[in-house]
Amino acid sequence: MRHALELGEVYRLLEPGPVVLLTTVRRGKPNVMTMSWHMMVEFEPPLVACVVSSNDFSFAALTATKACVIAVPGVELAEKVVAVGNCSGREVDKFATLGLTPVTEEGVVPPLVGECFANLACRVVETRLVRQFNLFVLEVTQAWAEPGWETRKTIHHKGWGVFAVDGGLIRLESKMP
Amino acid sequence: MRHALELGEVYRLLEPGPVVLLTTVRRGKPNVMTMSWHMMVEFEPPLVACVVSSNDFSFAALTATKACVIAVPGVELAEKVVAVGNCSGREVDKFATLGLTPVTEEGVVPPLVGECFANLACRVVETRLVRQFNLFVLEVTQAWAEPGWETRKTIHHKGWGVFAVDGGLIRLESKMP
Repeated sequence: MRHALELGEVYRLLEPGPVVLLTTVRRGKPNVMTMSWHMMVEFEPPLVACVVSSNDFSFAALTATKACVIAVPGVELAEKVVAVGNCSGREVDKFATLGLTPVTEEGVVPPLVGECFANLACRVVETRLVRQFNLFVLEVTQAWAEPGWETRKTIHHKGWGVFAVDGGLIRLESKMP
Repeated sequence: MRHALELGEVYRLLEPGPVVLLTTVRRGKPNVMTMSWHMMVEFEPPLVACVVSSNDFSFAALTATKACVIAVPGVELAEKVVAVGNCSGREVDKFATLGLTPVTEEGVVPPLVGECFANLACRVVETRLVRQFNLFVLEVTQAWAEPGWETRKTIHHKGWGVFAVDGGLIRLESKMP
């Protein structure tokens, strides 16, 4: 069901601000974390800024390998997404424990998340603000999505486990992409 | 109706990824733009990263004055928010043309937007990634919100004038702030 997504479409997945998952792999061990602090920086090639705390187990893997996958979960995964955020890859294999499927794509080292409706393979392209702010800039090099991704409902974190779920869509005449 | 908001609460407004307005002032002339590319960088003091394109009229004001206000509009302002994005402060006084109210707060130079349910006074604290990525890091120094801000519905841009409107809220046991 997963098909390649044109890179020029990637911003339409992240600009709305959904909670996403971020996967990394280090020494053969895949890990996944929950992330809400991300934004688009450029349309194409798509650049994404994100904050991965140096307290997060994923920080070392991201810094060392400069590779990650951003996976976009639909609202139906909300409980698993929160569970991912409530434990650490230091202690558990989160994919196995939480029943998420690591999917290997050719040429991409961190796993995609099989249950997510979109996956973005990224490499770190800018690290000047990592030391002070834990802020990475990523380039999305490959993207995949399931049919109907444009209207999938996502979740948006409002603090302390409260999430707004996408409701209806409105369309207004905009000159902006 | 507007009251001071504790700075530790600011992330709850921006982390969900709403479309916001950004105001600046230069040579006595206030301006306002629409912005979707922003993210939290730190809880407290609240730090926010954002992209303001060097093509935007606001870029020069932000660079020169290092001051802006981020205003959060509810869904009822959606048409005005898109109209703000469809014209340039080079050509029009957007506040007057679009019927938005610039509000002066003591000690804050850019105007708040009277119609928005939350307003965040910011100063630029990091510019190393401006030249290459148009990426600014802001510190929120003062914040205001209307009562009930926690449940106001916002809009999230999915590209080409399509917006997801917040629907219901869900609450899940999270260890994360």
